[in-house]
Amino acid sequence: MASEEPLVAVTCTAPVNIAVIKYWGKRDEELILPINSSLSVTLHQDQLRTTTTAAVSKDFTEDRIWLNGREEDAGQPRLQACLREIRRLAQERSSARDGAPPAPSLSYKVHMASANNFPTAAGLASSAAGFACLAYTLAQLYGVEGDLSEVARRGSGSACRSLHGGFAVWHMGERADGKDSVARQVAPETHWPELRVLILVVSAEKKLTSSTAGMQTSVETSPLLRFRAEAVVPARLAEMTRCVRERDFEGFARLTMRDSNQFHATCLDTFPPISYLNDTSRRIIHLVHRFNGHHGATKVAYTFDAGPNAVIFTLDDTVAEFVAAVRHSFPPESNGDKFLQGLPVRPAPLSEELKAALATEPAPGGIKYIIATQVGPGPQVLDDPHAHLLGPDGLPKPAA
Amino acid sequence: MASEEPLVAVTCTAPVNIAVIKYWGKRDEELILPINSSLSVTLHQDQLRTTTTAAVSKDFTEDRIWLNGREEDAGQPRLQACLREIRRLAQERSSARDGAPPAPSLSYKVHMASANNFPTAAGLASSAAGFACLAYTLAQLYGVEGDLSEVARRGSGSACRSLHGGFAVWHMGERADGKDSVARQVAPETHWPELRVLILVVSAEKKLTSSTAGMQTSVETSPLLRFRAEAVVPARLAEMTRCVRERDFEGFARLTMRDSNQFHATCLDTFPPISYLNDTSRRIIHLVHRFNGHHGATKVAYTFDAGPNAVIFTLDDTVAEFVAAVRHSFPPESNGDKFLQGLPVRPAPLSEELKAALATEPAPGGIKYIIATQVGPGPQVLDDPHAHLLGPDGLPKPAA
Repeated sequence: MASEEPLVAVTCTAPVNIAVIKYWGKRDEELILPINSSLSVTLHQDQLRTTTTAAVSKDFTEDRIWLNGREEDAGQPRLQACLREIRRLAQERSSARDGAPPAPSLSYKVHMASANNFPTAAGLASSAAGFACLAYTLAQLYGVEGDLSEVARRGSGSACRSLHGGFAVWHMGERADGKDSVARQVAPETHWPELRVLILVVSAEKKLTSSTAGMQTSVETSPLLRFRAEAVVPARLAEMTRCVRERDFEGFARLTMRDSNQFHATCLDTFPPISYLNDTSRRIIHLVHRFNGHHGATKVAYTFDAGPNAVIFTLDDTVAEFVAAVRHSFPPESNGDKFLQGLPVRPAPLSEELKAALATEPAPGGIKYIIATQVGPGPQVLDDPHAHLLGPDGLPKPAA
Repeated sequence: MASEEPLVAVTCTAPVNIAVIKYWGKRDEELILPINSSLSVTLHQDQLRTTTTAAVSKDFTEDRIWLNGREEDAGQPRLQACLREIRRLAQERSSARDGAPPAPSLSYKVHMASANNFPTAAGLASSAAGFACLAYTLAQLYGVEGDLSEVARRGSGSACRSLHGGFAVWHMGERADGKDSVARQVAPETHWPELRVLILVVSAEKKLTSSTAGMQTSVETSPLLRFRAEAVVPARLAEMTRCVRERDFEGFARLTMRDSNQFHATCLDTFPPISYLNDTSRRIIHLVHRFNGHHGATKVAYTFDAGPNAVIFTLDDTVAEFVAAVRHSFPPESNGDKFLQGLPVRPAPLSEELKAALATEPAPGGIKYIIATQVGPGPQVLDDPHAHLLGPDGLPKPAA
C-alpha cells in the first residue's frame, strides 16, 4: 500500500483497575451513566496492561480494529461512540486553539490494534483497560487534551477509572447528559508503596453472565441493588476515600471485602439470580477470614468482580506468608514452577499454628496461578516506533 | 423402677415446614422474636416427621431428654424455656377451669424422647419439627389447649409454623413481650391438592454456620437484611398469602425463588459472609430456570434454607418430567434404586428439546437422593401405646 502521505500512528498502554467500591448498574444504558459512584485501585502495567496502536491515513477506506491480532467488528456501537466522542473533542480543540500543531484529518479513517499482555482466560476486566487505552491513544493521535472520562466511559463504564494511576473514583454525577460522570484521581500510585495485589486465577467451569447483561437485569429486578446504590454506597465511598488517603489498611481491607460481598449479594438478589462466585471463590473467602482470624487483625482482603477470580490486597510484609497459605490450601496441580507470576515473592514457611487455623481440606488445582503485582500509574505513551502494533501498511504486524 | 403410681405418657408427631417467605434475624434473642413475618408450607408427615413421647412420674428425679436414642442435655436454655412456658400455661389452665380433668402434677419431672423418620444428614430443619412436636406433646400431657406458638417459638422460632398443617404464617408481632408473635394457618392441607414438594438432598462438604449464630451476625452486620425486613418482606408476605389463597402457582413459584435468593443474598452481605449454597445448589437453580425457560412458564420453583439442599415446588402434572430432568443433570452415583424416595413418581421420558435446553454438563453424584412429598397436616396424637418411645420405666425403648 504505497502512499505519498505516510500514516500517522501512536501507541500507548493502559492499566487494569480493580474496584473496591463496586460499580453495578446503569441509570442510562446509552450514555453509560452508573447508579452509584465507584472507587478503584489501578494495577501496575509491568504485570497487566493493554497496548493499543491507532493510525490514520488518507488511504484507509474504513475504520478497522484488531484485538489480540484478530479483526473485530469496528461498527460495534460502543467503539463507534468512542470514536464519535474523540472526534468531537478534536474538532472543538482545532476550532479553539489556532496555534495548535496540525492534527490528522478527522475525515480520515482509523485503524486500531490492541493487545493484552495477560491471558484473556485470566478473566480480568480487560474491557476497562482496553477502552481506556483506546481513548488515551486516540487523544494522543488527535492532540486532544483534558478529561477523557466520557470517551472511555462510552466504551466501558469502568474504563474511565483506568485513565488514572493510583486510586481513582468515578463520580456518578447528576446530570442527564453525563458531563459530570467523570473519573478523578484520589491518590497517585506513589501514595501507598507497601500495598500489594495478588490475582488468584480460579479454574472456572464455563462462560458466565456478561456484566452488561447482568447489571441490566439487576437494575430491573433487585430491590436490594437500588437500596445499596442510594443508601449504602455514598457513605462507603466517603469512608473508602478516607481509608486510602490515610493508608488505613484494616479499614480499607474490611470495607473492600464488605463491598465485594454486597455486590455479589445484589447479583444473587437478581432474578434469575447471577452467581459469579464458585466453590473455589468461597474457599478463598474462607481462607482469608481464617488467616486474618489467626493474626487477630485484618491483614488480607479479597474482592471479586464478575467472575470467580479473587483479587487480594495485602501489605508487603504479609505477601509471602499469605502466598504460602494459598499454596497450602490450593496445591498447584501441574505448573508448580509457573504458579506464581509477576513480582517475586520469597518462599515463606507456614507455622503449624497457622496451618491448624486454616483448617481447610486442600483443594488441588482450584487456583490455576497467582499474579503478584502492585499499584501502578495511568496510561503511558510509547515513543519507540518499534512498539507499534500496526505496520507501515496499517495492518497488524505479524508478531502482534 | 417399680412405682405405685404408673407414669403418664403421651406420644405425638409433628411435621417439617419449609418457609417460602424466609425468617432470618431476631429482634429479641431471648424471646425469639423475628425482624420480619414469614410464611411456610407444611410437609406431609408420611415422608418427614418427628415423633415425641413425653412422660411424667413422681419417681423421675430430673428432666431428661433423648434425641434419636441419644441422651442430650435437658438443661439447655431453649428446652427449659419451653418447659417453663408449658408449665405456666398448665398452671393458668388448672386455676381457670375447676371442672377440667386432673393433669399430672406440674412438680413432677418429665422425660422426653424424640426421633425423626428422616436422616439428620438430610440437613432439613429438624429443630422446627422437633420443638413443635415437643410443645404439642407437652400440651397434650398437661391438658393445655389454645395457642402453643410461644411454647414452640421459644424452642426454635420457625417451630411455631409447624404447629399448623397446610400453609402457615408466623406474624412477627409488635409487642415487646412477644404475645402477638404467633403462627396462624393461611390455608389447610386440603387447599391445594396438586402441589408437590421434592427435597433434593445435596452432597455437602462440611458443617455449616448454624442458623442461630448466622442470623445474629446478619442482623449485626448486613445493611441489606434490615432493608429487606422493613421494606421488602411486608409486601411479599401479602402477595404470597394471595398466591396461596388463589392457588396462583406461577406467582407462588416466582416469589418463592426470589425470596430464597434474597435470603441468601443477605447471608452473603453478612460479615464475614455466610454461604449456604454450593456449586450443586447453583446448578439446581440453573436447571430450574432452564426448565421453566424451555416451557415458557414457571412450572417449578426452588427454595434453599440454611444449607445446600434444594426444596422444589411444582404441580402433580410436572413432577415426573422434572425428576427426569434432575436424573439427567445429576446421574445417581450408586443408589440408583433408592435415588427417589417418598411418594411414587412414574418414570418419564425427556424430550431431546428439553435435554438441549438444559444444556448442563451432567454432575454425577451431586444429588444424593430425592424425597417426594406433598403438603400435609399439623401435629397428631398417636393413641396406640405401642407408639411410645419411652417404656414403662421412663427410659427409651431399645427399638427407638
